[in-house]
Amino acid sequence: MIDLCLYNQLHRFAVAPSVGATWQPNPPVHWKESTPMLRQHSIEIRVRYDECDPMGFVHHSRYLQYFEMGRTELLRASGGNYREMEEAGQLVVVVRVDCRYRRPACYDDLLRLETEITGVTAGKILHQYHLYRDQELLVQADVTLAVIDRKGQIQRVPEFLRTAFSADQSP
Amino acid sequence: MIDLCLYNQLHRFAVAPSVGATWQPNPPVHWKESTPMLRQHSIEIRVRYDECDPMGFVHHSRYLQYFEMGRTELLRASGGNYREMEEAGQLVVVVRVDCRYRRPACYDDLLRLETEITGVTAGKILHQYHLYRDQELLVQADVTLAVIDRKGQIQRVPEFLRTAFSADQSP
Amino acid sequence: MIDLCLYNQLHRFAVAPSVGATWQPNPPVHWKESTPMLRQHSIEIRVRYDECDPMGFVHHSRYLQYFEMGRTELLRASGGNYREMEEAGQLVVVVRVDCRYRRPACYDDLLRLETEITGVTAGKILHQYHLYRDQELLVQADVTLAVIDRKGQIQRVPEFLRTAFSADQSP
Amino acid sequence: MIDLCLYNQLHRFAVAPSVGATWQPNPPVHWKESTPMLRQHSIEIRVRYDECDPMGFVHHSRYLQYFEMGRTELLRASGGNYREMEEAGQLVVVVRVDCRYRRPACYDDLLRLETEITGVTAGKILHQYHLYRDQELLVQADVTLAVIDRKGQIQRVPEFLRTAFSADQSP
Repeated sequence: MIDLCLYNQLHRFAVAPSVGATWQPNPPVHWKESTPMLRQHSIEIRVRYDECDPMGFVHHSRYLQYFEMGRTELLRASGGNYREMEEAGQLVVVVRVDCRYRRPACYDDLLRLETEITGVTAGKILHQYHLYRDQELLVQADVTLAVIDRKGQIQRVPEFLRTAFSADQSP
Repeated sequence: MIDLCLYNQLHRFAVAPSVGATWQPNPPVHWKESTPMLRQHSIEIRVRYDECDPMGFVHHSRYLQYFEMGRTELLRASGGNYREMEEAGQLVVVVRVDCRYRRPACYDDLLRLETEITGVTAGKILHQYHLYRDQELLVQADVTLAVIDRKGQIQRVPEFLRTAFSADQSP
Repeated sequence: MIDLCLYNQLHRFAVAPSVGATWQPNPPVHWKESTPMLRQHSIEIRVRYDECDPMGFVHHSRYLQYFEMGRTELLRASGGNYREMEEAGQLVVVVRVDCRYRRPACYDDLLRLETEITGVTAGKILHQYHLYRDQELLVQADVTLAVIDRKGQIQRVPEFLRTAFSADQSP
Repeated sequence: MIDLCLYNQLHRFAVAPSVGATWQPNPPVHWKESTPMLRQHSIEIRVRYDECDPMGFVHHSRYLQYFEMGRTELLRASGGNYREMEEAGQLVVVVRVDCRYRRPACYDDLLRLETEITGVTAGKILHQYHLYRDQELLVQADVTLAVIDRKGQIQRVPEFLRTAFSADQSP
């Protein structure tokens, strides 16, 4: 036996039903009360060689992967965790990307990605991204997310995200 | 010596200037007169395993790579070739992507991508994409391209693309 | 509701146990008796733009994705299907890759990948790959696979693969 | 004009010959004398979502990209820079990868990659990689590199790498 470490797989299946079983509401992902929800967060990204194309530029599809890192780290900095949400059966999916490319990033560039939550409703989470090299804006995007369960049913956006966002907006 | 085959690299450098040289206008990419420019084209894509994420879905960034295949094959079916354009110093870059994800594609799905040129101006080429599994629309996108030279200067969209598009639209 | 199509996800969970349940042997993946198991198979691959790096070459990591396509299509041509194996809980994992890169492939090249099963034992499946552009050998590799279940336990290689391979080798 | 920033592209073409010109020996990449060449280096890698496949594991092809990050950062920590080598016309290519996968890495895992230079000759650079999650060894690999010029001719491994490696080995 190779004894593969499948711990997150096992987590995943802990919430999967046997055949014919009724789906139970997933255990809520607990929010660490002490951490205030952040609306903005910034990370640094070093461009990898395999991310660049024959023009020497980061391939335009790769920025969407950077944005995913941005929202993962924003959530982590706020005390949350996408992996735990997914293990609890709350799958976050992208429903729209509107991305404008202004200048190319190149191999080995050190970039700064600014992620901002711009809206949270019962059905959607909106993020905006600005990617910089020094002071120069390279790429800018709006991304819309939704939450589904394992059967593909749209779920309400978790309460903690909605509450945190509204609270944060109050003056 | 390993004798690596660098033929397209050599092509590339054939148009690169020595230090201080004046850039010459690139040799025009000749259009095969006998092939009419197509406005629409369709290809089949078999989803690869590495393109799918832990949800079992094609990662949302990967569709942008499918779209690039769609426009490459549309151009090829019309007698053109992106590789030759690039070797001639006409670099096609993506300036905007607006993509709406309706349903996920999964590993091993056989998809049909419909690519359409929806506009060609002096500065931009517009494409629209519809990706289907059987009759079901999965993903839909508008992509805007521009043409630059190796110095990053915006170029006019090649004449053959503009002419072909206008001709095609006439009644 | 967005009504996402999750059919293979549902398949997947159909074989997942509830918490504490005993794992049942998976239903065997039936082999289409009429199709003889192939030991060799060949596919064509058109190099995509995003697969190439700033040197203009296919990034060395990408060939491993080509090899995976090669074995998927060999199995399909033999009447089998990796997706069905995976849905039945037989996960095929790579345990070793030994890859020698002789010449680079470039954007838009049309390549020919030859896949051969070179050995099947109770615990391992061995493949060999040769990737060509015309008559020129570009990349060559040996890949060793194993089969695990969802708990990460090593499984015996499915009977149909072992039988087919031995039968095929008889004079 | 979009005024794309192509600075590394321009660097690149600064060393490209005009048609028919004789290739000059590239300007040597200067080694920062004060920094001793490192033989070993360690980096942390957070697994991205798009790097994982439907089994929930990092796709086996992706580890080769991690290894490339490892050697990039080892060189940087020693005062060198792959981007500058490439701009100076010294292209580092992978000629062999022998990779053994022992346990899978999963989304959001924080991994530690240990990179070691295990040999430098006139023609080759050998690296060994060990990837860990905590104390658990996940993946192990030997990678052989060579250096070519833009025409695909094998180059001698830069003097500074050979010297540094030998010096480092002396008792």
